[in-house]
Amino acid sequence: MSDAENETRDRYPHFADLQTRWSDNDIYGHVNNVTYYSYFDTVVNCFLIEAAGLDIQEGPEIGYAVETKCKFNKPVAYPEPLDAGLRVGRIGNSSVRFEIGIFRKGDNDAAAAGHFIHVFVDRATGKPVTIPDKIRGALERILAPTSSASSGA
Amino acid sequence: MSDAENETRDRYPHFADLQTRWSDNDIYGHVNNVTYYSYFDTVVNCFLIEAAGLDIQEGPEIGYAVETKCKFNKPVAYPEPLDAGLRVGRIGNSSVRFEIGIFRKGDNDAAAAGHFIHVFVDRATGKPVTIPDKIRGALERILAPTSSASSGA
Amino acid sequence: MSDAENETRDRYPHFADLQTRWSDNDIYGHVNNVTYYSYFDTVVNCFLIEAAGLDIQEGPEIGYAVETKCKFNKPVAYPEPLDAGLRVGRIGNSSVRFEIGIFRKGDNDAAAAGHFIHVFVDRATGKPVTIPDKIRGALERILAPTSSASSGA
Amino acid sequence: MSDAENETRDRYPHFADLQTRWSDNDIYGHVNNVTYYSYFDTVVNCFLIEAAGLDIQEGPEIGYAVETKCKFNKPVAYPEPLDAGLRVGRIGNSSVRFEIGIFRKGDNDAAAAGHFIHVFVDRATGKPVTIPDKIRGALERILAPTSSASSGA
Repeated sequence: MSDAENETRDRYPHFADLQTRWSDNDIYGHVNNVTYYSYFDTVVNCFLIEAAGLDIQEGPEIGYAVETKCKFNKPVAYPEPLDAGLRVGRIGNSSVRFEIGIFRKGDNDAAAAGHFIHVFVDRATGKPVTIPDKIRGALERILAPTSSASSGA
Repeated sequence: MSDAENETRDRYPHFADLQTRWSDNDIYGHVNNVTYYSYFDTVVNCFLIEAAGLDIQEGPEIGYAVETKCKFNKPVAYPEPLDAGLRVGRIGNSSVRFEIGIFRKGDNDAAAAGHFIHVFVDRATGKPVTIPDKIRGALERILAPTSSASSGA
Repeated sequence: MSDAENETRDRYPHFADLQTRWSDNDIYGHVNNVTYYSYFDTVVNCFLIEAAGLDIQEGPEIGYAVETKCKFNKPVAYPEPLDAGLRVGRIGNSSVRFEIGIFRKGDNDAAAAGHFIHVFVDRATGKPVTIPDKIRGALERILAPTSSASSGA
Repeated sequence: MSDAENETRDRYPHFADLQTRWSDNDIYGHVNNVTYYSYFDTVVNCFLIEAAGLDIQEGPEIGYAVETKCKFNKPVAYPEPLDAGLRVGRIGNSSVRFEIGIFRKGDNDAAAAGHFIHVFVDRATGKPVTIPDKIRGALERILAPTSSASSGA
């Protein structure tokens, strides 16, 4: 379940700071819906790079997004800083489902929450590959204990 | 249903051209997953502006995104031009579900497809409002005949 | 000279259509200054790809931006379509100065104008290379006749 | 002078942290030239909001960019964090020239440096206004002592 209304900080084992930018606000004065996916991409890949040694420049395996989704619960706006919570909802042979919550500082419930499904592929051929052990180990460290309940979002 | 695999051109009553940009390609050489949502935002709002008279600068009602989702079926890359198909999957009192397919020129099946749920709110108060008749009329013109089957995505 | 005030359509030998996007408008309701550089990047690289065979995915030479500048004369806003005028102001051994004007449809004077200096480098080493003949030939076809007067901007 | 080669940390009285994002890297694997202007916009407006009380949502005066420029000295790439140095090069009646240097952590010379000229205008009419005293005071606190030498860039 990634309903933003029900996503609280305790549901995320990993957190990262997010800086907002001038360009994140759209004509209506709030962070645009598209920008949240840029936050997702940034947080997920930072985790893979730092915790799992993903080499986005030269590594043999790369992660392709195959499905993403986000629900928006309340607005945020530049210049406020944000927190991103990250957990893994499901690990398959070649794919992983990341679940992300975006929080205003001091808020316990998410301003927005969604998921991001990565398939690992061979950089040269684009064919799916088994998730390498080093990456799998890192993913398991932030695997949600109740991930079986997470499949509905 | 917005599975990109099953989304063909005939399922969309409205089409718009999309230009790709240098910045759409990410380090892996294809249009980044985030960018598709920028296409969605552009196509949906263009339709509302042109077909329904939405005034994004001064109008009393504005559309907030409350949920978006996209599935990615095959890669595209700048500088290739794209087509966006648009239909309305469901119209409520204050909300509307847009369904969008992104197509490579000449392809009949979507490279990516997803949805975008807008809630119309009062610009000043942020409270939901009944969709104005002029907008509702435009939405009905691109309403999917089989929209009852569209609820699963 | 790239003063937007003095940049008229007749000063550009090459034109391209530009589509605006929802995200181009910032909180003040106009296309944000940053976005113009995305237009520059898009138009310059499209020209290099289409007219000069630049292969951004695999080619041995790539173009790095070493200096860019833009002056903003009057605002534009999504969803209006735009025209981009392109000329080459100067061709060196490994570098080229592109000059770009962004025009509203129907306007003869530029809404914004600027330049973009590319250095061609070897993709593997990052070292400057002599501009390949095929690219040089294309650049010369849009070289400004009065380019000697263009050095001040 | 904003030649990136000569821009060292000691030339900037104000610093801010910058986070890079996945989308900052382009197909060539480095932060794209366009993105630096997004950093400029973010840092300049953060300073105006925090140090000078600029109200980007409702305030009577807003800052429009009329000219921006950047020179690129060496590449940077997501996910590395960056520092932005900020100074004011010149204060006029209604306009201000910001000068910005982007630094890799630990580097003393700028990876890129440029300027950003803001004109303050009345939000409703778009006409230039005298810079309000509160903003002028904040600008003077980061005015470059050698700003007379800064006019060449």
